[in-house]
Amino acid sequence: MFDFTDRELKTAHDIRIIGAPFDGTVSFRPGARFGPAAIRHASDGLETWSPALNADLESIHYADGGDLELPMGDVALVLAIIREAVDECLNDGATPFLLGGEHLVSLPAIEAVFDRYPDLVVIQLDAHADQREDYLGVKLSHACVMRRVCELIGYDNVRQLGVRSGTRDEYTLMQRFQTQACLREESLAELVDWIGGRPVYLTVDLDVFDPSCMSGTGTPEPGGIDWWVFQRFITALQGCDMVGLDVVELAPQLDPSGCSSVLAAKAVREMLLMAGS
Amino acid sequence: MFDFTDRELKTAHDIRIIGAPFDGTVSFRPGARFGPAAIRHASDGLETWSPALNADLESIHYADGGDLELPMGDVALVLAIIREAVDECLNDGATPFLLGGEHLVSLPAIEAVFDRYPDLVVIQLDAHADQREDYLGVKLSHACVMRRVCELIGYDNVRQLGVRSGTRDEYTLMQRFQTQACLREESLAELVDWIGGRPVYLTVDLDVFDPSCMSGTGTPEPGGIDWWVFQRFITALQGCDMVGLDVVELAPQLDPSGCSSVLAAKAVREMLLMAGS
Amino acid sequence: MFDFTDRELKTAHDIRIIGAPFDGTVSFRPGARFGPAAIRHASDGLETWSPALNADLESIHYADGGDLELPMGDVALVLAIIREAVDECLNDGATPFLLGGEHLVSLPAIEAVFDRYPDLVVIQLDAHADQREDYLGVKLSHACVMRRVCELIGYDNVRQLGVRSGTRDEYTLMQRFQTQACLREESLAELVDWIGGRPVYLTVDLDVFDPSCMSGTGTPEPGGIDWWVFQRFITALQGCDMVGLDVVELAPQLDPSGCSSVLAAKAVREMLLMAGS
Amino acid sequence: MFDFTDRELKTAHDIRIIGAPFDGTVSFRPGARFGPAAIRHASDGLETWSPALNADLESIHYADGGDLELPMGDVALVLAIIREAVDECLNDGATPFLLGGEHLVSLPAIEAVFDRYPDLVVIQLDAHADQREDYLGVKLSHACVMRRVCELIGYDNVRQLGVRSGTRDEYTLMQRFQTQACLREESLAELVDWIGGRPVYLTVDLDVFDPSCMSGTGTPEPGGIDWWVFQRFITALQGCDMVGLDVVELAPQLDPSGCSSVLAAKAVREMLLMAGS
Amino acid sequence: MFDFTDRELKTAHDIRIIGAPFDGTVSFRPGARFGPAAIRHASDGLETWSPALNADLESIHYADGGDLELPMGDVALVLAIIREAVDECLNDGATPFLLGGEHLVSLPAIEAVFDRYPDLVVIQLDAHADQREDYLGVKLSHACVMRRVCELIGYDNVRQLGVRSGTRDEYTLMQRFQTQACLREESLAELVDWIGGRPVYLTVDLDVFDPSCMSGTGTPEPGGIDWWVFQRFITALQGCDMVGLDVVELAPQLDPSGCSSVLAAKAVREMLLMAGS
Amino acid sequence: MFDFTDRELKTAHDIRIIGAPFDGTVSFRPGARFGPAAIRHASDGLETWSPALNADLESIHYADGGDLELPMGDVALVLAIIREAVDECLNDGATPFLLGGEHLVSLPAIEAVFDRYPDLVVIQLDAHADQREDYLGVKLSHACVMRRVCELIGYDNVRQLGVRSGTRDEYTLMQRFQTQACLREESLAELVDWIGGRPVYLTVDLDVFDPSCMSGTGTPEPGGIDWWVFQRFITALQGCDMVGLDVVELAPQLDPSGCSSVLAAKAVREMLLMAGS
Repeated sequence: MFDFTDRELKTAHDIRIIGAPFDGTVSFRPGARFGPAAIRHASDGLETWSPALNADLESIHYADGGDLELPMGDVALVLAIIREAVDECLNDGATPFLLGGEHLVSLPAIEAVFDRYPDLVVIQLDAHADQREDYLGVKLSHACVMRRVCELIGYDNVRQLGVRSGTRDEYTLMQRFQTQACLREESLAELVDWIGGRPVYLTVDLDVFDPSCMSGTGTPEPGGIDWWVFQRFITALQGCDMVGLDVVELAPQLDPSGCSSVLAAKAVREMLLMAGS
Repeated sequence: MFDFTDRELKTAHDIRIIGAPFDGTVSFRPGARFGPAAIRHASDGLETWSPALNADLESIHYADGGDLELPMGDVALVLAIIREAVDECLNDGATPFLLGGEHLVSLPAIEAVFDRYPDLVVIQLDAHADQREDYLGVKLSHACVMRRVCELIGYDNVRQLGVRSGTRDEYTLMQRFQTQACLREESLAELVDWIGGRPVYLTVDLDVFDPSCMSGTGTPEPGGIDWWVFQRFITALQGCDMVGLDVVELAPQLDPSGCSSVLAAKAVREMLLMAGS
Repeated sequence: MFDFTDRELKTAHDIRIIGAPFDGTVSFRPGARFGPAAIRHASDGLETWSPALNADLESIHYADGGDLELPMGDVALVLAIIREAVDECLNDGATPFLLGGEHLVSLPAIEAVFDRYPDLVVIQLDAHADQREDYLGVKLSHACVMRRVCELIGYDNVRQLGVRSGTRDEYTLMQRFQTQACLREESLAELVDWIGGRPVYLTVDLDVFDPSCMSGTGTPEPGGIDWWVFQRFITALQGCDMVGLDVVELAPQLDPSGCSSVLAAKAVREMLLMAGS
Repeated sequence: MFDFTDRELKTAHDIRIIGAPFDGTVSFRPGARFGPAAIRHASDGLETWSPALNADLESIHYADGGDLELPMGDVALVLAIIREAVDECLNDGATPFLLGGEHLVSLPAIEAVFDRYPDLVVIQLDAHADQREDYLGVKLSHACVMRRVCELIGYDNVRQLGVRSGTRDEYTLMQRFQTQACLREESLAELVDWIGGRPVYLTVDLDVFDPSCMSGTGTPEPGGIDWWVFQRFITALQGCDMVGLDVVELAPQLDPSGCSSVLAAKAVREMLLMAGS
Repeated sequence: MFDFTDRELKTAHDIRIIGAPFDGTVSFRPGARFGPAAIRHASDGLETWSPALNADLESIHYADGGDLELPMGDVALVLAIIREAVDECLNDGATPFLLGGEHLVSLPAIEAVFDRYPDLVVIQLDAHADQREDYLGVKLSHACVMRRVCELIGYDNVRQLGVRSGTRDEYTLMQRFQTQACLREESLAELVDWIGGRPVYLTVDLDVFDPSCMSGTGTPEPGGIDWWVFQRFITALQGCDMVGLDVVELAPQLDPSGCSSVLAAKAVREMLLMAGS
Repeated sequence: MFDFTDRELKTAHDIRIIGAPFDGTVSFRPGARFGPAAIRHASDGLETWSPALNADLESIHYADGGDLELPMGDVALVLAIIREAVDECLNDGATPFLLGGEHLVSLPAIEAVFDRYPDLVVIQLDAHADQREDYLGVKLSHACVMRRVCELIGYDNVRQLGVRSGTRDEYTLMQRFQTQACLREESLAELVDWIGGRPVYLTVDLDVFDPSCMSGTGTPEPGGIDWWVFQRFITALQGCDMVGLDVVELAPQLDPSGCSSVLAAKAVREMLLMAGS
């Protein structure tokens, strides 16, 4: 029973939640625009206390900045509005935590964060590589977002976990640049070593979860992770310097049971506790 | 039990069905992209014979051109692709019949038809005025489509039927230009008189129907028409010179019963029979 | 809040409810097998009192005989089991009231009743003519059931109300034999005159209702009747000699709101009160 | 696209919206607790302008007081909390407008209003009489709420419109006290005459609408009104002295299309415009 | 394909199934009242034979006592009715097996059983601690039920398995009294040792399962057990002296696939076989 | 994003996909008739590349023969039509790959294949034994299909994997003939040894998957396999001589999330790659 509203920013270590309800480039099944509202609603049924992290949201400084008003039909304008909101958040000394929306919303956020932190590393949890050059001729698409991110910050500074789908070309690319990492316990230790003291942007495409846990997403892909693998990952990253986070691609209307929204809200809770304490 | 596939074009009076599965500017609830597939699927459960029109699809020359491949995320490109397909259809001497998709897909179709028929009149069935100057700064939006059409062909050449929702400004505009017409029997006779021998483009936004009949649409508006009012309208227009048609804004995933898709398919059948015989 | 269970047969004028959960010949969308259970369940939310008929189920002698066990995959056996159950009901001096199941279940019931009442007339409420010679080569199909009935008892002894869909051939047939009747008030008086003192079997295919009222049916057809037209029809028939009734083609899983099941249960209530008092 | 939040109270003629998300006595199908949130959400897709009333919400002084926190499982405490909120609203000189929740939430609201306005009349739109003495021994139930209201303010001061379901006893009661009124145009004029200058509390149980328009309600009852009958009723009441209003029994999860919530939100808009201008 | 109905009680070792369709204190999402009916319905699709337990329901003496009629809106009365039914069951020498309904229905059942078996131990499978002192001021709530049970029979006599959610206070409490046990194989052996020869009441809150297996529950919590962990638990308990059982918190309308109801029915089958043979 | 349509047969090693949309003997919940269409639709959201098999559909020779037109209500005719289609496929030198439909559709396919390959072995993945002698007196039922297959080709030539449900008699039968095999890694090696060089027909009843992965099936059975177990099985069988395949019992309307259809489409992809390369 936590909720994001009515919390005030207090210190420079605060986290600001920013809803980015956009799904305009989704090719298969839209609805990620309803993600932020569903996460807020589902958070009502969860406790503030995390037994796994031994921590409570009551002790974390975060605030919900509400949803951005994003004009469907004008992708460039949408990205500019998100960029501006993240810039403002950083100017205020707060860490941005985006709630998507589709995965493309991560791009302007990462651009803004990279501007401040030139040694940024990006950690991606995702079922899909998102490494296409373009999709039906469109380069600013949720199917291409990590390609754009890699072009911006360099393949060397990106790690992709949970990827199990892509074209042959995308797999060739990932192998050439060795961007893929593994979620096994020993691999997570290596990942944390690799990060070192560098600032981290963590982007979680919820389709990294198996569709059995997360049916409410536009492009489900069988063979994903379960909750405890995610929990272990979050625990492993405690202590890293998180400078930006997002959770994207929840399409709640595809899951009438509401369980996907509950899982997304719990993921947000654990990420807040990991980044904020 | 009719279906659109595997029919060949035969004469200059043929009708070509063109699927336009785009919903990229929809602000409230997306899903109109699934409209064409749902209409085709639902047509399986309907007869080819219309008792009301005393006519049979078996006697009509029409063909299904399938769906256009439309890149979500690039509205300008989408509109260009539709425009090209409608131009090609007209070049082949066929009458275009679009299946949306959102209402914005009507714009390039009407532009193409207007190019050939400068004395074109447009008849709109719709719950909403669609006369906004822009929506959140976007001028090419389904909320503005009839404003763009009126700017193109002149307010004098447009009639709007079934409208029951709009801003105060939109109502002022409709009153100034007297674009609204009524679906009562006597008013339909006036409408047909007003059309005279001029070529007609008929655009049917399915939300003109009451939500009780058509729950599967993005922006339902209580107080709409039922099937028999629509049937009467179609019967009244028999004999008019139809040079373009569309049926838009079916969002089938919002209606798990499938009845909205059945109604849409039946509307398409009646429109084919009215325009093609 | 009435329910069908635990009622005992008392007199020769009793009505026996027989569930016939079969949908094996349904071509488009199955699920009518779940009809009887849904009607029973929905009856929990309705009163026993009918303000329109000024009568109460508490005063009617009827009993629920439960559902027949019908082996999907063997149509001939299914029809034989239904026939036997209706014969047994008639032998016990009770009036059969079937809950379908698809419309084909009416055939063995009408056969059994016709055996006792050679001057039987059949009144059909239905969206579809059901007058096909065969469907994909199958003659015992829900699309052909009234053709079989007419062959059995003669076209002259059948009246069809609410029909709005059929092939050209079916319409030709209905016109030749003048089987169609109308639901307007004055036409209902003519219908009752035509019946005279003859025994009546009433078969109600629920798709006679408009899909707005009855979305939970396999083959919805826009343009149907609403509740009050049905109520007027039932009131008009009070006093006729009902010797058999059925309500068929409820497919409840197609209507997640449950309203179709409630309407079906209310229709059953009114028919029980009309036939039993 | 109106929304209830972030509006400030300005004058003594203001209206205050109070969410009462309680459904603890619902016997058949719960879910009315989700009504207030669904109405707020659906209001996003509606205009502020009403063509029927020629009025705009922008000109009305109203505010959304948010939802009360109501402890399921303690009916007495729930009623006390609602009573206190309505008292506070009246103390502030504002008119209460409750969003239910089940119909029982009207009782404490009417008690509070009656305390200030001893000549109060109550107008009820409803499918059900709600005149039971008790339900399974429980006297504070949504099935008994109007009995309790009538006992409080006197049967003479209550009018019930749209009722089409009840027990024989409830109908006897309504006939004895002549509480039923009709929604035909001429009857509405009589109703307004009967009201005269007296203060009015209007309670709208949304199941007064036909299930085709309003499938999202716990106890749907076939044979109800459509939108235009409601619109005519609202128009007729313009000019009456409204001192309390509510809209109850929306159970949105029963209507996956969302159309019931849209209708409820539009009803709230028209009632705000009727009462506030 | 087993079903609960029409079985007769024969010996003192019989089990009696008692439906307790109550969800009046559920704070988040109601619907557990539909649990008993859904379990009965789903049992139709399951075999009577359990390969895991090598046993068949045909050999077990159990009977279905049907559902209690529970008045929503009067929690005290509901608890008294359940208490009376369980007392009667025990008086008849049968073991009670409740089908919830929400978790609060376990309280009167445990009270009745504890009255007969003062050395009772209670084993709880649950995602939530249910150890709150009160919930929004209400002490008889499904969020507090195990606190009430512990107060009654002593913390020492309770073991909680599968708990993964609670407030910080609840976790402190569970640690102080060491009520938590683990579902690993070796821990199950310890559990059975701890039980010794004492009589056992087993209460299974179905949300102990991961939401991927059990989406149809009011408060799903990611990170739960799967079927085989449950099966192993049941196998481990064979031979214990079961004197009361329940399965609670199935909310079937939240899972349109029906898989949650099937899992619940299979859990009931295994528990019947474990307790009855 | 692969799709089955518009691919041409090229060589004798081609695979031909044949849709068999029949569910006429399904006893519990119908809908498998919608399986083929759902698999085709879901295949749009998947890549052609399989990282697990290191292979691409672009390199495989297969074609989609579309759906057979199967007359519900005449099982014998349905089986004859399927038989004829598979015979024709084999005559053309192609390998049949059926998309069900219910499991009974495997029978005529196996008959046709067995006619050509008298040393055929059949591998069945399934939750249920399907070894009943008859079901409610019907011998050609999806509950009996493997009994019929075993009678045809001999129990010695059948292996059943994933079975976890059956009657006591079915389990006795399976133990007598030792038809059950295991999906553990080492057991798969034994299975491949057992196959040797013999031709294989692989029939996959999708309910072999756990309901958490595959809720869209008529008779879900808790305790099934997950994606990776299936993937391992497919990898193990690479190199075997596949002469026939099918995927049956997807009932997509039971899974509103669409994830079951996606899993089924991905299973088809892996099986195509395994059999075709």
